[in-house]
Amino acid sequence: MEPLVIAGRTFTSRLIVGTGKYKDGAETRSAIEASGAEMVTVAVRRVNLDRSTESLLDFIDPSKYFMLPNTAGCYTAEEAIRAARLGREVGLSDWVKIEVIGDLPTLYPDIQATVEATRVLVKEGFTVLPYTSDDIVFAKRLIDVGAAAVMPLGAPIGTGIGIANISTLRMMRELITEVPLVVDAGLGTASDAALAMEMGFDAVLLNTAIAGAKDPVLMAKAMGKAVEAGREAFLAGRMPKKLYATASSPMDGISR
Amino acid sequence: MEPLVIAGRTFTSRLIVGTGKYKDGAETRSAIEASGAEMVTVAVRRVNLDRSTESLLDFIDPSKYFMLPNTAGCYTAEEAIRAARLGREVGLSDWVKIEVIGDLPTLYPDIQATVEATRVLVKEGFTVLPYTSDDIVFAKRLIDVGAAAVMPLGAPIGTGIGIANISTLRMMRELITEVPLVVDAGLGTASDAALAMEMGFDAVLLNTAIAGAKDPVLMAKAMGKAVEAGREAFLAGRMPKKLYATASSPMDGISR
Amino acid sequence: MEPLVIAGRTFTSRLIVGTGKYKDGAETRSAIEASGAEMVTVAVRRVNLDRSTESLLDFIDPSKYFMLPNTAGCYTAEEAIRAARLGREVGLSDWVKIEVIGDLPTLYPDIQATVEATRVLVKEGFTVLPYTSDDIVFAKRLIDVGAAAVMPLGAPIGTGIGIANISTLRMMRELITEVPLVVDAGLGTASDAALAMEMGFDAVLLNTAIAGAKDPVLMAKAMGKAVEAGREAFLAGRMPKKLYATASSPMDGISR
Amino acid sequence: MEPLVIAGRTFTSRLIVGTGKYKDGAETRSAIEASGAEMVTVAVRRVNLDRSTESLLDFIDPSKYFMLPNTAGCYTAEEAIRAARLGREVGLSDWVKIEVIGDLPTLYPDIQATVEATRVLVKEGFTVLPYTSDDIVFAKRLIDVGAAAVMPLGAPIGTGIGIANISTLRMMRELITEVPLVVDAGLGTASDAALAMEMGFDAVLLNTAIAGAKDPVLMAKAMGKAVEAGREAFLAGRMPKKLYATASSPMDGISR
Repeated sequence: MEPLVIAGRTFTSRLIVGTGKYKDGAETRSAIEASGAEMVTVAVRRVNLDRSTESLLDFIDPSKYFMLPNTAGCYTAEEAIRAARLGREVGLSDWVKIEVIGDLPTLYPDIQATVEATRVLVKEGFTVLPYTSDDIVFAKRLIDVGAAAVMPLGAPIGTGIGIANISTLRMMRELITEVPLVVDAGLGTASDAALAMEMGFDAVLLNTAIAGAKDPVLMAKAMGKAVEAGREAFLAGRMPKKLYATASSPMDGISR
Repeated sequence: MEPLVIAGRTFTSRLIVGTGKYKDGAETRSAIEASGAEMVTVAVRRVNLDRSTESLLDFIDPSKYFMLPNTAGCYTAEEAIRAARLGREVGLSDWVKIEVIGDLPTLYPDIQATVEATRVLVKEGFTVLPYTSDDIVFAKRLIDVGAAAVMPLGAPIGTGIGIANISTLRMMRELITEVPLVVDAGLGTASDAALAMEMGFDAVLLNTAIAGAKDPVLMAKAMGKAVEAGREAFLAGRMPKKLYATASSPMDGISR
Repeated sequence: MEPLVIAGRTFTSRLIVGTGKYKDGAETRSAIEASGAEMVTVAVRRVNLDRSTESLLDFIDPSKYFMLPNTAGCYTAEEAIRAARLGREVGLSDWVKIEVIGDLPTLYPDIQATVEATRVLVKEGFTVLPYTSDDIVFAKRLIDVGAAAVMPLGAPIGTGIGIANISTLRMMRELITEVPLVVDAGLGTASDAALAMEMGFDAVLLNTAIAGAKDPVLMAKAMGKAVEAGREAFLAGRMPKKLYATASSPMDGISR
Repeated sequence: MEPLVIAGRTFTSRLIVGTGKYKDGAETRSAIEASGAEMVTVAVRRVNLDRSTESLLDFIDPSKYFMLPNTAGCYTAEEAIRAARLGREVGLSDWVKIEVIGDLPTLYPDIQATVEATRVLVKEGFTVLPYTSDDIVFAKRLIDVGAAAVMPLGAPIGTGIGIANISTLRMMRELITEVPLVVDAGLGTASDAALAMEMGFDAVLLNTAIAGAKDPVLMAKAMGKAVEAGREAFLAGRMPKKLYATASSPMDGISR
């Protein structure tokens, strides 16, 4: 499969995974390994920076994975900017996933603050991958301020709903081609990940769908295969839908 | 992955593929190989029984694949019964996929004739895998007359719609546990196959979705992975859906 | 609105309602009146034929409504035939809605028995409106044996799922034009009824969706309006769907 | 039906209609009358302010309708603010529907500019009804700056897709109760309007769905009934969905 390229860097896997919500470090390590992911997000907040106690970094080998610090738990642009800088200072990375939560019960992103943080950090030399909503106006603004990728939600964080906004994401994919588009958040199971890839998205970022499964390691394996299956199906060019096999025209406006 | 067992026979792959509609024999062979399928359906009608000219069997190695003759092109129970017997006589198999078309434009099955053909052939010692609609009454009748599996459609043959009848198939899966249930027909792309497996179906049978893709070999590979992904996701036990992450209860009656 | 015509008889309303599951006779009467329906189904089983005790007919004025006896509670063609004859003998009607249940937990119809009962009763001079599945082969058989209308389910009886099989019903509507098509069973709320009418169905038959609402009389009123709204929207010819307003072509294969 | 109240003013109809895209003034007038709407939006840009030529106001009787000026065609907060002021100066209204387009091909709103315009205009004494996306963070900001209602899209303007974002709008409805919520834009037919009301939205605002139908006047009538049907169904309390009638629990996570 042709590799994913973000900001000039090549990744063999189109699945990006998080490291939150696992039972323990061993499960985290096993699940990530089973997923086949190469890029792994770590919350700057959760990295034990002085290494005095056990830390995520004891379980994830930085020589095997590309670590992407994220700003999970930040509620303003300033907090997110600070977290990104801290991640770079302690040697984690000059790449960062910007995530600014705007609404507590729903964990919906604050896309205005996300643009602001992205703008500042790009100027400071960061490679910024912002998590955002499916708002095409703000997606274009993120690109304007230098985002290396745009990562819209399929549904709110932690919901497992899948792709709740198919037509909006389809529109986004059709109109945005300058940078990679990654579906980040909301997916719940393997077919959701396959569908995202079939819609032409460049990658998928998952956390709860794996960590929240009854058997996270097996789900991680499933997700790895689903992302490959979806990408290959996209590249293979699916058959057209017809209302019945001998119908004279493909279906118009019917998805099931 | 735990194997699929039908009528006491064990299969390593849960993907069953057809052999119709390919450009030529070489493409057929490559696609089947890429799919990883072990069971392959062949239309008795299309097998060149006297071997005077090139035949499917020149391209599919019977030592590598389990050949399942099917009665494609039959419009009555009698025709289907005759085709099954012919397949056995020429040494193809004493297994048969019964397919009786009841309606020409839609290729919808005649489920009454399907039950009748199944009844007769089971008595003659065949292992019968009938293709049927999503009608639960007739699914139970097929089991009553000795079907070794029940294979309901996800959508009419050749449509690529996907699973058009999610709640009906879910009901069927919940209530039928005596024999394997295989989603046969209507799927269009990898995520459809993954979804079928996630719903707990035991296997998926595909033809047009692979042969009708722009690149059938790549789609075959995608389908192989999607079926594994879907099965593993089913076994892994997916996370519950919630309207938002901090909602107090899982979603009731909302699928997106 | 142009009237509904079944077997040469004209009906002003395209909503047909059942009379089961209400709290009491008064609620039944109020709900039916609020719905605006002209045709009302009554289970032959539930009509108190000797009039010794309170009966449905004490609450529904036969001079205001067209009573359609149904064979609810029958599990074989013979039972359904007997019920139809009984209904005619006691003077209810020579019209009958045939309903033969084939599966107890799901209440799915036995479509083979339904065809058989229809065949017999049509020969005896009945005007038969069979309740059936969404199987197009059997729908055509019902027409062949003289059904005056075909009434496929949107989803199994009493589920309130809505139209679970949109593409199948759409296919049915496109291919069957000889008799009226009525969506019978499975609908849960007003928008379901409107959608059925927008798909071009000639009428909608409801019972649980009204009787099972918290306020049945208000829901009946809603259903009456929804059926009119859906019919008018169908006749008005809806705007095409587009992925975005300035997109160059209508959406292909996307329903949301 | 209990009335809709916005900013202390009572409206008898929960359908709000636009006045764009009609063939001519006569059709506009007929459609609006058929819809039963009381509130009607007019683009300040399109009102012929000096009355030198034929104008919308020649066709819509201000004594019968509540005119809501809108800022259609504005691309910045400043333009929208200017349009609102102009509308008030010429005596149209001190109410205004704020609409700021952020993206030309998709007509997606610029929600940041919308908040800004709302903030300024509320301070100037306007009653502001902003058209916005389904972003819950910005919906809350609109309320914080004094919006009298929040009007999220069901899908982008002019698409007729229907409610593309059911779970997001459901979440919004569950969490926002301070002001009326109106589904504005994207609806295509009567069942879409009914569904919006059944989800508990306070009103529906439509334009293209009516003006773009083959018969706009009949579609207007359908929409009027659909909104009433949906509201009544919401108030009536629909039956629960079940996978099959005798299932022991309502459906979890299944919408069809």
